[in-house]
Amino acid sequence: MAVGIGDDAAVLAGDPPIVVTTDLLVEGVHFRRATTSMRDLGHRALAVNLSDVAAMGARPVAAFVGLGLPRRERPSGGDVDALYDGMEALAARAGASVAGGDVVDAPVLVLAVTAIGRMDVGVAPVLRSGARPGDLVCVTGILGASAAGLLVLEDPLLATGVAEAEALRAAHRLPQPRLAAGPTLAAGGASAMLDCSDGLALDALRMARASGVAIEIDLDLLPIAPGVSLVAAAAGREPDVLAATGGEDFELIVALAPGRLDALRAALDVPLTPVGRILAGEPSLTALRAGLPVHLSRPGWEHGA
Amino acid sequence: MAVGIGDDAAVLAGDPPIVVTTDLLVEGVHFRRATTSMRDLGHRALAVNLSDVAAMGARPVAAFVGLGLPRRERPSGGDVDALYDGMEALAARAGASVAGGDVVDAPVLVLAVTAIGRMDVGVAPVLRSGARPGDLVCVTGILGASAAGLLVLEDPLLATGVAEAEALRAAHRLPQPRLAAGPTLAAGGASAMLDCSDGLALDALRMARASGVAIEIDLDLLPIAPGVSLVAAAAGREPDVLAATGGEDFELIVALAPGRLDALRAALDVPLTPVGRILAGEPSLTALRAGLPVHLSRPGWEHGA
Repeated sequence: MAVGIGDDAAVLAGDPPIVVTTDLLVEGVHFRRATTSMRDLGHRALAVNLSDVAAMGARPVAAFVGLGLPRRERPSGGDVDALYDGMEALAARAGASVAGGDVVDAPVLVLAVTAIGRMDVGVAPVLRSGARPGDLVCVTGILGASAAGLLVLEDPLLATGVAEAEALRAAHRLPQPRLAAGPTLAAGGASAMLDCSDGLALDALRMARASGVAIEIDLDLLPIAPGVSLVAAAAGREPDVLAATGGEDFELIVALAPGRLDALRAALDVPLTPVGRILAGEPSLTALRAGLPVHLSRPGWEHGA
Repeated sequence: MAVGIGDDAAVLAGDPPIVVTTDLLVEGVHFRRATTSMRDLGHRALAVNLSDVAAMGARPVAAFVGLGLPRRERPSGGDVDALYDGMEALAARAGASVAGGDVVDAPVLVLAVTAIGRMDVGVAPVLRSGARPGDLVCVTGILGASAAGLLVLEDPLLATGVAEAEALRAAHRLPQPRLAAGPTLAAGGASAMLDCSDGLALDALRMARASGVAIEIDLDLLPIAPGVSLVAAAAGREPDVLAATGGEDFELIVALAPGRLDALRAALDVPLTPVGRILAGEPSLTALRAGLPVHLSRPGWEHGA
């Protein structure tokens, strides 16, 4: 075992190395059946794990599912099929198989998903601990869509006049992990990488702590998803703070030497946007707006790191 | 993915192949905290998975744990440490690492364990589907100890005068998977293998169905653990039926060509006892005593196959 607890996935030494990640999703804690379709739940449960695989730079190979089914309000056979369908559709796009594991009784619906990925030949796993002073901090894709989508799902009035509302809802319901970008960034020499499942700010702070560096993020540089500003305004939130702290975008946060940026941008199938820099100093995360520090807070922020 | 649902573990093609198995253990369904120490629970949760790895002929490499902790009657830090201690002590003996995974809230204690094993170079995984007419059916070790241990734990009076009572209790509390025997049997040409976690009769029936063969077991040949006969008599049970249907012995059930028996016995660190034979015919399991069929039944028998 080369890497234990604390990275996106564990690494099993070998040729090629294999990465393994596991997540436990519990009804009433991580989801409610009243507000999540079984198909979406299957998609999300697997997406979380495949994103961790991609964030190591690996390609998904297989996923294993342990399923706890409640006796009360027991999901029908059709419900269970829909759950697997959601996983299998995503797995198929990822080139991976879903192998059923255990099915057991449980007081509530429980999903235990383990995903396994394989590194490309000659490419080493990218840890969150490899960021070095002088590196750029970049993010793939766009930020804030999932958080804005959740706001709109909770209060449909916020979508009034927002042309992108359906895309925002879809970003929350069916997040798309960066499966191709992860291996490309690993092969292209990324220093450190993790996914921003808990939001750019919190996950960048995790990178800072693991790497023993300070990180500055410029809120002005964030690639904010279309429609987020309108939804944020309607909700009385600042768009850049929503994009920096709203979780579940499943974009990748990458530290890399500045000289590697152009080649990586050319090789990627998604935008790669520099949003900050790695500095020597005590592990910390500073968010700047027009060059001045901004205090970020959101529920759970202090406890989640 | 070479093997999906239905074998002890899934096989990921590679050199060497890797086997993966996952189990979900739920408080109130699979265990009760009132009657199981946290250390024993950790041991058992991992033992179940390592036994599945061994039953493919692989050697354990790593285990990944997802842990759901209830808010009510929440286990203390010491309890969680004891749970991991139980896993880590067994993993250390198996030459494997335990990597913590997710820790989440849950309504009851939930343990999701995924174990990964590696085949020895040049040795193929042994499936439960490989049994052929003419093969012997053998079991490692001794049978019935765990079932008798459970009877004694539930009713201590049954242990009166049974010198082996403590060994029987330990067999139930701390089952020892056949970690060395599995790879030895795979390297030595076993045709089919699975562990008898649900009892010899039910698991042999699974082998019969997967292989498309009939299996006969001679109850007179079973290697019944010392003390089981006394406990069974006190409980009004037939010892051979208890040994054939009592689960959780975690011995290996092996089909092999008769000519391989002597070499395998010499190579193994545990007894290997022929208890029956593979026949051509509709998939079935017949138990014989003095050559006559015996009807086996136990709670759950009809539903568990």
